[in-house]
Amino acid sequence: MPKYYKRRSKKMGLPPGSLVHIGQPKSGRASVSLMDYDEKHFQEKTIDNVDECIPFKDKPSVTWINVDGVHEVDMLDRLGRAYGLHPLVLEDIANTDQRPKMDDLGDYIYLVAKMIYAKEKDDGLVTEQVSLVLGANYVLSFQEGIEGDVFNPIRERIRTDKGQIRKRGTDYLVYSLLDAVVDSYFAILERMGEKIESLEAELVSHPTPRTLHALQDLKKEMVFLRKSVWPLREVISGLERAQSPLIRPSTFVYLRDVYDHSIQVIDTLETFRDMLSGMLDIYLSSMSNRINSVMKVLTIIATIFMPLTFIAGVYGMNFKHMPELEWRRGYPLVMGLMALVGLSMLGYFKHKRWF
Amino acid sequence: MPKYYKRRSKKMGLPPGSLVHIGQPKSGRASVSLMDYDEKHFQEKTIDNVDECIPFKDKPSVTWINVDGVHEVDMLDRLGRAYGLHPLVLEDIANTDQRPKMDDLGDYIYLVAKMIYAKEKDDGLVTEQVSLVLGANYVLSFQEGIEGDVFNPIRERIRTDKGQIRKRGTDYLVYSLLDAVVDSYFAILERMGEKIESLEAELVSHPTPRTLHALQDLKKEMVFLRKSVWPLREVISGLERAQSPLIRPSTFVYLRDVYDHSIQVIDTLETFRDMLSGMLDIYLSSMSNRINSVMKVLTIIATIFMPLTFIAGVYGMNFKHMPELEWRRGYPLVMGLMALVGLSMLGYFKHKRWF
Amino acid sequence: MPKYYKRRSKKMGLPPGSLVHIGQPKSGRASVSLMDYDEKHFQEKTIDNVDECIPFKDKPSVTWINVDGVHEVDMLDRLGRAYGLHPLVLEDIANTDQRPKMDDLGDYIYLVAKMIYAKEKDDGLVTEQVSLVLGANYVLSFQEGIEGDVFNPIRERIRTDKGQIRKRGTDYLVYSLLDAVVDSYFAILERMGEKIESLEAELVSHPTPRTLHALQDLKKEMVFLRKSVWPLREVISGLERAQSPLIRPSTFVYLRDVYDHSIQVIDTLETFRDMLSGMLDIYLSSMSNRINSVMKVLTIIATIFMPLTFIAGVYGMNFKHMPELEWRRGYPLVMGLMALVGLSMLGYFKHKRWF
Amino acid sequence: MPKYYKRRSKKMGLPPGSLVHIGQPKSGRASVSLMDYDEKHFQEKTIDNVDECIPFKDKPSVTWINVDGVHEVDMLDRLGRAYGLHPLVLEDIANTDQRPKMDDLGDYIYLVAKMIYAKEKDDGLVTEQVSLVLGANYVLSFQEGIEGDVFNPIRERIRTDKGQIRKRGTDYLVYSLLDAVVDSYFAILERMGEKIESLEAELVSHPTPRTLHALQDLKKEMVFLRKSVWPLREVISGLERAQSPLIRPSTFVYLRDVYDHSIQVIDTLETFRDMLSGMLDIYLSSMSNRINSVMKVLTIIATIFMPLTFIAGVYGMNFKHMPELEWRRGYPLVMGLMALVGLSMLGYFKHKRWF
Amino acid sequence: MPKYYKRRSKKMGLPPGSLVHIGQPKSGRASVSLMDYDEKHFQEKTIDNVDECIPFKDKPSVTWINVDGVHEVDMLDRLGRAYGLHPLVLEDIANTDQRPKMDDLGDYIYLVAKMIYAKEKDDGLVTEQVSLVLGANYVLSFQEGIEGDVFNPIRERIRTDKGQIRKRGTDYLVYSLLDAVVDSYFAILERMGEKIESLEAELVSHPTPRTLHALQDLKKEMVFLRKSVWPLREVISGLERAQSPLIRPSTFVYLRDVYDHSIQVIDTLETFRDMLSGMLDIYLSSMSNRINSVMKVLTIIATIFMPLTFIAGVYGMNFKHMPELEWRRGYPLVMGLMALVGLSMLGYFKHKRWF
Repeated sequence: MPKYYKRRSKKMGLPPGSLVHIGQPKSGRASVSLMDYDEKHFQEKTIDNVDECIPFKDKPSVTWINVDGVHEVDMLDRLGRAYGLHPLVLEDIANTDQRPKMDDLGDYIYLVAKMIYAKEKDDGLVTEQVSLVLGANYVLSFQEGIEGDVFNPIRERIRTDKGQIRKRGTDYLVYSLLDAVVDSYFAILERMGEKIESLEAELVSHPTPRTLHALQDLKKEMVFLRKSVWPLREVISGLERAQSPLIRPSTFVYLRDVYDHSIQVIDTLETFRDMLSGMLDIYLSSMSNRINSVMKVLTIIATIFMPLTFIAGVYGMNFKHMPELEWRRGYPLVMGLMALVGLSMLGYFKHKRWF
Repeated sequence: MPKYYKRRSKKMGLPPGSLVHIGQPKSGRASVSLMDYDEKHFQEKTIDNVDECIPFKDKPSVTWINVDGVHEVDMLDRLGRAYGLHPLVLEDIANTDQRPKMDDLGDYIYLVAKMIYAKEKDDGLVTEQVSLVLGANYVLSFQEGIEGDVFNPIRERIRTDKGQIRKRGTDYLVYSLLDAVVDSYFAILERMGEKIESLEAELVSHPTPRTLHALQDLKKEMVFLRKSVWPLREVISGLERAQSPLIRPSTFVYLRDVYDHSIQVIDTLETFRDMLSGMLDIYLSSMSNRINSVMKVLTIIATIFMPLTFIAGVYGMNFKHMPELEWRRGYPLVMGLMALVGLSMLGYFKHKRWF
Repeated sequence: MPKYYKRRSKKMGLPPGSLVHIGQPKSGRASVSLMDYDEKHFQEKTIDNVDECIPFKDKPSVTWINVDGVHEVDMLDRLGRAYGLHPLVLEDIANTDQRPKMDDLGDYIYLVAKMIYAKEKDDGLVTEQVSLVLGANYVLSFQEGIEGDVFNPIRERIRTDKGQIRKRGTDYLVYSLLDAVVDSYFAILERMGEKIESLEAELVSHPTPRTLHALQDLKKEMVFLRKSVWPLREVISGLERAQSPLIRPSTFVYLRDVYDHSIQVIDTLETFRDMLSGMLDIYLSSMSNRINSVMKVLTIIATIFMPLTFIAGVYGMNFKHMPELEWRRGYPLVMGLMALVGLSMLGYFKHKRWF
Repeated sequence: MPKYYKRRSKKMGLPPGSLVHIGQPKSGRASVSLMDYDEKHFQEKTIDNVDECIPFKDKPSVTWINVDGVHEVDMLDRLGRAYGLHPLVLEDIANTDQRPKMDDLGDYIYLVAKMIYAKEKDDGLVTEQVSLVLGANYVLSFQEGIEGDVFNPIRERIRTDKGQIRKRGTDYLVYSLLDAVVDSYFAILERMGEKIESLEAELVSHPTPRTLHALQDLKKEMVFLRKSVWPLREVISGLERAQSPLIRPSTFVYLRDVYDHSIQVIDTLETFRDMLSGMLDIYLSSMSNRINSVMKVLTIIATIFMPLTFIAGVYGMNFKHMPELEWRRGYPLVMGLMALVGLSMLGYFKHKRWF
Repeated sequence: MPKYYKRRSKKMGLPPGSLVHIGQPKSGRASVSLMDYDEKHFQEKTIDNVDECIPFKDKPSVTWINVDGVHEVDMLDRLGRAYGLHPLVLEDIANTDQRPKMDDLGDYIYLVAKMIYAKEKDDGLVTEQVSLVLGANYVLSFQEGIEGDVFNPIRERIRTDKGQIRKRGTDYLVYSLLDAVVDSYFAILERMGEKIESLEAELVSHPTPRTLHALQDLKKEMVFLRKSVWPLREVISGLERAQSPLIRPSTFVYLRDVYDHSIQVIDTLETFRDMLSGMLDIYLSSMSNRINSVMKVLTIIATIFMPLTFIAGVYGMNFKHMPELEWRRGYPLVMGLMALVGLSMLGYFKHKRWF
């Protein structure tokens, strides 16, 4: 399974609006749940047949339909028809390789965002695309069906009527969902920050090629996160600028808040990136530092023993007439000479601060 | 044949609007085909004489004339006159070294895009320029005449009346052609992604200078693709902003869709670029890592054997008076000393974690 | 305690507007002080119970309430209600991990800025978030409660009626506070400039890996400062562009002055960054320079003594028939040959300017 | 003669509008030629005395006066007065160190562009400044007087009434001149492309420091070309935006064409730059690759012969009691041991894939 | 004395508008000179007491008051009051650590620019801040009082009524002053260009670490110059956009001219920067080139003499039974073997093109 892209090629040549699931192949069934609420009443049900959703379309209360799994294109198709979604929007929902974006289609606004989870055992990040359709009195959310989402606290708030969520409309619900998505990025940032710190410590104490690979993996994760956050920021600011009647001005202050959070995420990512590039510099220079110190050991040894071995070699020559060989004190004198040479070499290196 | 540019110099000094073919020299004849359709009828024919196209100019149905091979400038000239194209537009059509662009000339819109195919046997990409002329009831498309194009699925859709294509006008046809071009980029991206992954594996297991060259080749391909996609993105967004009566507002949602796809391509390219630069860092550091480990082997060997050879040299000296030489245990004692020196050196390197 | 981020995750899932303190955990109580003044009168008091502040809300004179410590969320909540602050604003005040920003909420303007202090003993910078609420006749300022702030000279000016501060309104007070914050950055810049100079001297005389770490630490501090100043610049220019009735045109010239100061800080930071990157280049090249000079010592020694040792080895061979060994002048001749070889090697290195 | 700038300093302190020639000192006289044409008639003459040009000023036909050599400031001055040029424009014409630019002075438009020629023998590029003054019925062009220009084909077209040039006005003539300038850049690009290819081949087969210098020279040439093309692009787009009555809307399509060409030049330059930086990476890594392989040879030799020499040294010791020395098979046994050690070392390096 | 910043910290806590001199401490007195002129009359005097300037304020002729030395804050204060300058403007005049900027205060325009001089003996650049106040019929200029300025030619032109300066108003005078400042940058650029050329030659012939330091110093100077020119460019273009009645439209063409000059300076600086970065690449690669060639010498020597020394060592062994030792031709044969080994090693290196 390729890692860096999703097989889009199977769609080549199909007419636009063809519903084809692009993404991780899934086997299980998609699950659909529905919440319908206003300040007074609250109803929650699990949907088996999509047609059960149709009656809610025209109820004035807020209806939130969450679809977990976009691989069942038939079901998507029926739901899309029921809520009057454009074929291209349905196509985008089924394609999990979207960039976060916002399309204002008049009757409804279509949004794409990315939830990001850390995989266990520290090997990378998992992304799950979430598509939101904001209508006047309904919100549709579509997830890839990966286990778990970040929306449970919102469900809980709706159920227990905590905060303002039951008093406000669909735009506030969509804001809450986006806020939950952006909040989840902070958890990823914390995890990255911890990794950076531990890598920094490792870099100072005992850098290995493994450290470099960990640095690069972290960099890739940051690119990954960046790709999700940058366009999301534009999506959020676009919601305010859209001047759609679907978004009440009283929601603007909330959108600005989640916008600030997304800026904060981007800011932190930039800081992390600066740190990583500084760490890479340190790594590379510690590499040449190590070559340097290995070289010094070699040079010290060679510089001391080569002259000594030479001297020993001279007195190992077999010339008939070598007067020193006959001297009584020849041997100790030469040994003394050798000690002198060796020590002066050591002194030279000491002077040069090589050790 | 130069690789990185096409010989434009043969045009130097000619007056503007001179029809000169710039590009790979071709020998075969250009082939021209025509499709004429509306919701009710459909007609397809192969054109031998360009004059056959003239009667279609004023028919209200959509006429799509596809020219395969822009090296026959006479034919271009006659077709251009028949459809009232500006001489500069014809000059641009014959020049296959164009940058993707859009010119709104009032009666028609002129577009340039690039189709990109992967060469077989993995050696690079091939580009084919496609010029589109969007009129009120006709679309002219000009290709370089390289074998194969990405428009066959569209032809099939027109023939079999699949999707909306027969129900909509020339702007939808042009959208479909652009969409096919952009879709073909995804195939190139998949191929690049696969190469990146295999290079990444190679980089971890056994990087060689060949890996670096493959990295650089990939980088060049990316520059190549980038040069085609960036301006195409502007072309597409320009179509919407142009506010030309030739493009109906109902087509805008489709243009925005293909615009999103082009952004997606650019985004993926940027990600790939980040990855490649990370891989280059890894490559370079693995190089100095290797120098480092070679140095260590040398240093260990030299540091162990130089002192030992020195000791052996000392007892190979020919002094008359060297008491050790007379000792019964002299030889085994010296051998023991040597073992001691060698082992303590090894211990030192073990301590320094050199192996 | 993590260094590069603050634990935001404890807020995940809470409804927006939940008052949760994010930042360094504090134990002491928050302290609140109040100043009320106009051209004629001046009153200063320490507040024990936040309700004491309420009567000042509708007084026409300027009221400045300074809160030192935002961890007491109950107190924040009561003060916020008294002055009609939006729950999201209160949430932001309690969250010390904000980016400098400005929100115009109609009745009041909410500002976030960062005070930066140098830690003693040269280990890094400390940041303290300051939130300002600018109302028509009141200014609320919230600090994290770290010891010391940069507002004392302003308090003194108010007390002693020095300068124009008592004659002007809340907008001038907010300007004065922002000016004090930006002024404090200059002190940090001076400290950085001194460090850069001492590192530069160190780099020329005896660069060590420690120098590189100091460089990187300085770089991190600059990233840190940058993160505070860049957005502050936008905040200040936003105040002028906001066209809020809360800011009188006569204050614009002051805002432009502090804006110029913030540009000055950014400019100096950019210059410092260029310097640091130049210093990094010098460091890295001095590293390979040193490898180079170590290599030269090794090569000189080896190149001189290897041939000499070889010659000695030749005359240490035990062949029966080696005529030179019998010569009277054999030994001095060989010694002369050795001297010749050694000196010519030295001459070669001299010629190559190796020493 | 300095290479990277022209001595502007001799103008310091002079009042603005002082006519001082800045550029290569010239000795020969400047030559002036005049063409006067409309659809019906054509006249060409060589001008000896600038006053001969004056009668043409008010003729309705198009007059093109070309001055070859701007060092004769007196002549410039008289011509400038005759055609009512602003002193600052004359000053700019005489200063050959201008950046391409456009000034709309109402009655006329002043343009600066750069012609670029390749020097023979492959040593760099030569630039020649061309100043154009576009009036209602005259065009003045000023060149530095370097031999040869790129305008001959245009002269020929005027003489032979080829193309549209005689039917159109001064704006079309200026367009033609600019088009000729931009076309000449393509020749430079081809030359650069060829150099890049040959350097690329050199880099793969046998990179030398000379290759690096050639890379850097090419880079300098690109900076040089870039400096001429980037501002020229703005000049051309400025002509269209200027909304001057001197430029008829019917000329816009031609200006857009030459604008597209200038973009094409810039695009190709960017591609070349990316390639050069990739080649630099390859060069640097091939350098450390080579250090690596030199190191390996050294290490292999040392690792094989140091242990062997040690063994030989052991049996060269002069101990009285060394039993192996007395053995009949001592010598062949030791030689076998040496072969074993040597071969196992070789096997180790083979295993490590060092050769 | 710190080099990279000026002690601003002594202003911390002071109310805005406090007149504090920031910059190099000066001891001498400031000197003030006055010129008053129109087309008819001219008057020049040296001012001892600032009050002498007051009568000139309301004269319709142009009055230019030049203050050399801004450390005498009392004098500044009195002059400022006389001409109605805002306290913040006076504060900025006394602070020589300003960024070039323009403030339009209605009655007058305040400008800051930087004069740059090359220090003698080639050690760096000196900057002198010049503040200009452009009123309807007066111009105030404030310099730091460093010896010499670039305004003498303008004074001379006024005295001798050369050029247009006496016929035009205060805006033309300010333009002339700015033009003189920008012109002085060209002298600095020439000096830099000469240094770059000599460094380039040094780099090719014998690069040393000193070359690198010179490169870095040059880079710092460029950063320095850049910091003065970039904002000045904005100042000049701001003057035109300001639409102040103080600047007549007839002066625009002059402002555009000096604007072009500032662009030219920036352009040349960018070119220099590209060159320096290319030179740094060459330096670094020449470093590793040199390591490479040192390594080769070592490897060649070791590879030749290690095997030879080993062979000599073998025949230096003391085995009883070594038949070769008894051979008549043993010695010459072994010497021949050694020559063979040595020469084949040399041949190998020749083949590898190592020398």
